[in-house]
Amino acid sequence: VPPVTVRSDQPESAPRGLERGRQLDRVNGFSDGLFTISATLLVLSIHVPEIPKAAAPDELPAAIGHLFTGQIPTYFLSFWVIAVFWLRHHELFGRIARSDTRFASINLLFLAFVSLLPFPTELLGQYGREPLVVDIYAANLVILSLLLRRLAREAERAHLLHPGYVALDRAMELRGNAVALLFGLSIPLAWVDPYLSMACWFGSIFAQRFVTRRFS
Amino acid sequence: VPPVTVRSDQPESAPRGLERGRQLDRVNGFSDGLFTISATLLVLSIHVPEIPKAAAPDELPAAIGHLFTGQIPTYFLSFWVIAVFWLRHHELFGRIARSDTRFASINLLFLAFVSLLPFPTELLGQYGREPLVVDIYAANLVILSLLLRRLAREAERAHLLHPGYVALDRAMELRGNAVALLFGLSIPLAWVDPYLSMACWFGSIFAQRFVTRRFS
Amino acid sequence: VPPVTVRSDQPESAPRGLERGRQLDRVNGFSDGLFTISATLLVLSIHVPEIPKAAAPDELPAAIGHLFTGQIPTYFLSFWVIAVFWLRHHELFGRIARSDTRFASINLLFLAFVSLLPFPTELLGQYGREPLVVDIYAANLVILSLLLRRLAREAERAHLLHPGYVALDRAMELRGNAVALLFGLSIPLAWVDPYLSMACWFGSIFAQRFVTRRFS
Amino acid sequence: VPPVTVRSDQPESAPRGLERGRQLDRVNGFSDGLFTISATLLVLSIHVPEIPKAAAPDELPAAIGHLFTGQIPTYFLSFWVIAVFWLRHHELFGRIARSDTRFASINLLFLAFVSLLPFPTELLGQYGREPLVVDIYAANLVILSLLLRRLAREAERAHLLHPGYVALDRAMELRGNAVALLFGLSIPLAWVDPYLSMACWFGSIFAQRFVTRRFS
Repeated sequence: VPPVTVRSDQPESAPRGLERGRQLDRVNGFSDGLFTISATLLVLSIHVPEIPKAAAPDELPAAIGHLFTGQIPTYFLSFWVIAVFWLRHHELFGRIARSDTRFASINLLFLAFVSLLPFPTELLGQYGREPLVVDIYAANLVILSLLLRRLAREAERAHLLHPGYVALDRAMELRGNAVALLFGLSIPLAWVDPYLSMACWFGSIFAQRFVTRRFS
Repeated sequence: VPPVTVRSDQPESAPRGLERGRQLDRVNGFSDGLFTISATLLVLSIHVPEIPKAAAPDELPAAIGHLFTGQIPTYFLSFWVIAVFWLRHHELFGRIARSDTRFASINLLFLAFVSLLPFPTELLGQYGREPLVVDIYAANLVILSLLLRRLAREAERAHLLHPGYVALDRAMELRGNAVALLFGLSIPLAWVDPYLSMACWFGSIFAQRFVTRRFS
Repeated sequence: VPPVTVRSDQPESAPRGLERGRQLDRVNGFSDGLFTISATLLVLSIHVPEIPKAAAPDELPAAIGHLFTGQIPTYFLSFWVIAVFWLRHHELFGRIARSDTRFASINLLFLAFVSLLPFPTELLGQYGREPLVVDIYAANLVILSLLLRRLAREAERAHLLHPGYVALDRAMELRGNAVALLFGLSIPLAWVDPYLSMACWFGSIFAQRFVTRRFS
Repeated sequence: VPPVTVRSDQPESAPRGLERGRQLDRVNGFSDGLFTISATLLVLSIHVPEIPKAAAPDELPAAIGHLFTGQIPTYFLSFWVIAVFWLRHHELFGRIARSDTRFASINLLFLAFVSLLPFPTELLGQYGREPLVVDIYAANLVILSLLLRRLAREAERAHLLHPGYVALDRAMELRGNAVALLFGLSIPLAWVDPYLSMACWFGSIFAQRFVTRRFS
C-alpha cells in the first residue's frame, strides 16, 4: 500500500472521510452524467428534412433514404464510440480509491472532448465524404484515446488506485494501442479515400475483440 | 442459487464486492439518465412557429392550433412510450443482481434506440400522415420491444438475477407479445390508412391494462 | 400506521425490501433528473440574433436589447417556476415511504407537463404580448398545480407516507390554492391586457411568501 | 458547535434525520446535474456550416477554419469556466451539513446563471469582437463569482457547515477576489480592445494558480 499524504487547510474531524468518499462520488456522477447527456444529444445531429406539406409524399422518401445512408449510421457509430469510452472510463474508475487535482484536471479535459463529440458527429453526418471532416472525427477519437491513457498513467503515478490493483493490464494497454493506431492511421488515409478511414474504424472493433479474447 | 463464475485479471481483494455493486449502480445510472434525458429532449420536437411580429395576431392562432393536432399529441405519445419502456426496464433491473459483458452490450443497443426516439417523434409530429413516417416510428417501438425481451432472456440465461426471481413472469411476457404484435401490425396498416396504425398503438394501451388485470 | 398490502408475483425473499427502496430512489432520480434537464433546456429558448458580420456593430445592440426585454426575463421566470415546483415536489417526496402504480402514473403525467415547459417558455419569449400565448403559459402552470395537488391527495389516500406525516399541511394547501387561483385568473385577464396576467404571476410570489410567513 | 433550530410543522419522528440527509443529497444532485447538463449543452453553440453538397469541397475548409478561431475555443473556454465553478461549488458543498430556505434560494439563483452560460457562449462564439458581447460574457462570470461568495457567507452566517469547518479559507477568498477583479476589469477594457478583456480572463487562470501555490 503506497503512502498517502492529504494536505488540508481544515482541522481534521469526523466527516472528513465521508467528505472525501462523497467527492469521488460527485466526480463519478459528473463523468457519468456527461457521457449520458452527450450520448443523448447525438440524436440532434439527425436533421428532420424540411419539405412543404404538398411535396412531402413525393420528396420525403428520398430525403429519409438519404438520412439512412448518412446521419443515422453516423449516430449509431458515435453512440457506440461514447459507449466504448464510457465502459473503459468506468473500468478505470472502478479501481480508483481517491482523486487529486491533476487527475481531476485530466479527467475534465477528457470529458471536454467527450462532450465535443456531437459536433464532429454532425459534421460527419452531413459531409461524410470530405477528407477534412473524416480527419476531424478521427482526431477527436485519437485525442480521447490518448487522454484516457494519460489518466490511467496518472492514477498509477499518484497512487490513486485501490490497493492491489493496476490501472492498465496488458489487454487494456494493447487494446488502447490498437485503437489509437488504427484511428491515427485513418487520418492520412482519408485523403486517399474516406471509406478507407471508415474501414480502419470498423477494424478497431475487431482488433479490440481479438485482443480481449486473446489476452484477458 | 445458480453457480456464478467471475473472471478477473486482478488479485482478489476486499473492495471487489463493493466495486461490482458500484458498477451495477453505474449501469443503472447510465440507463436512467438516458431515459430521462430522451424524455426531456422530446420537447425540442415541438417547433415554435416563426411569424413576423406584425402578422402574429392574425396568423399565430392557426399556427398554434396546428401544433395542438400534430406535434403536441406526438410529444405526449412519445413521453408515454419512454415512460412505459422505462418502467419495464426498471422492473427488470430491480431483479438483476449483477451484469456481464453481453448483457451490458444488449442494454446499450436498447438504449441507443431509446435515445433515437426524439428523431421519429419529430418526423411523426411534422409528417404524421405519411405512411413511411408512421412505419419508422412503429419500427423503432418494435425494435425496443424485441431488445427488451432479448435483455430479459439474457438475464435468465446468464444467471444475473437475484435468487428466487424470474426475468419475465407470464403477465410480462403476454404484455410484451401484445405490444410487439400490435406495433408490428401497425406497419403494413399505415399503407391502408395512417390512422389505423395509430388505433393499433392506442389498442396496445388497453391490451396492456387487460393483461395486467387478468394475469397478475 | 395504516395497513399496507403489497401484491407480488415473485417469491418473498431477502432483497425484496432493498429492491422496493431502490425503486423509490429510481423514481426520485427520474423526477429530479427531469426537473434539472428541463431547467437547463430553458436556455435554448433564448435565440442568438442572426446578423451578418458587417452589420453587427450597428444592429447587434438593438437586437440584444430586445432579448433583455423578452426572452431573457422569460428564461428567469420559467427557471423560477421549475425551481418552485421542484421544491414543492421535493417536499412531498421527502414524506413518501413507498410508491404504487397510480401514484407513479400521476407523477409521470406531472413530469410530462414539467418537461413541456420549455415550449410555452419559448412561445412567451417570442410572442409575449399575444393573449393566446400568455394563456398557454398560464394553463401549463395551472395544470402543474392541479396535478401536484392530485399527487399529494393520492399519497394520502393510498397510505404512501412515512408514519406520522401528512401530505399537505394547511400552509401548503393555502399556497397551492393561491397559486392556482392567481394563475387561473390570469387566463381571462390576458384578453384585457397581457401585462395584467403577468402581474397576477408576480402576485403569486408574494402570496406564497405571505402564506409561508403567516401559517407555517 | 453552533445551536441549530429547525422549524417543523410535522410531528418529530424517526425518518426525520434520514429525510433531512436525503434533501441535502437532492440539492446536491440538482446542482451537479445542472452543471453537467450546461457543460454538455455548450457543444450546441458550435454551428455546423450549411454549405450545398456541390460547393462543400471548395468552401468547407474555410468555414471549418473559421470555427477553429471562434466557436471552438469559446466552447473550451466556457467548459473550463463551468468546470472551475463546479469545483468551487463542490468544495463548498463538501463542507455543508444542512441547508435552509435562504441558502437554497441563493443556490438556485447561482444555478440560473450557470444554466444561462450557453447563451453568452454562443453570442461570444459568433460575435467575439463586439465589446457588448464580451461584456455580457464577463458580466455573467462576475455575477457567478459574487453569488458563489454570497452563498459561502450565508453558509457561515446560518451555521450550515460541518463542525470545525469554515466556508472560505484565505486562499479561496483571495482566489475569488482575483477572479472577480480581473473579470470586472475586463468589462470596461472590452471597449478599448476585446482582446484586452480576453487577456484579463487568461490572467485569471494564472492568478488562481499563483494564489493556490502561495497560500494553501
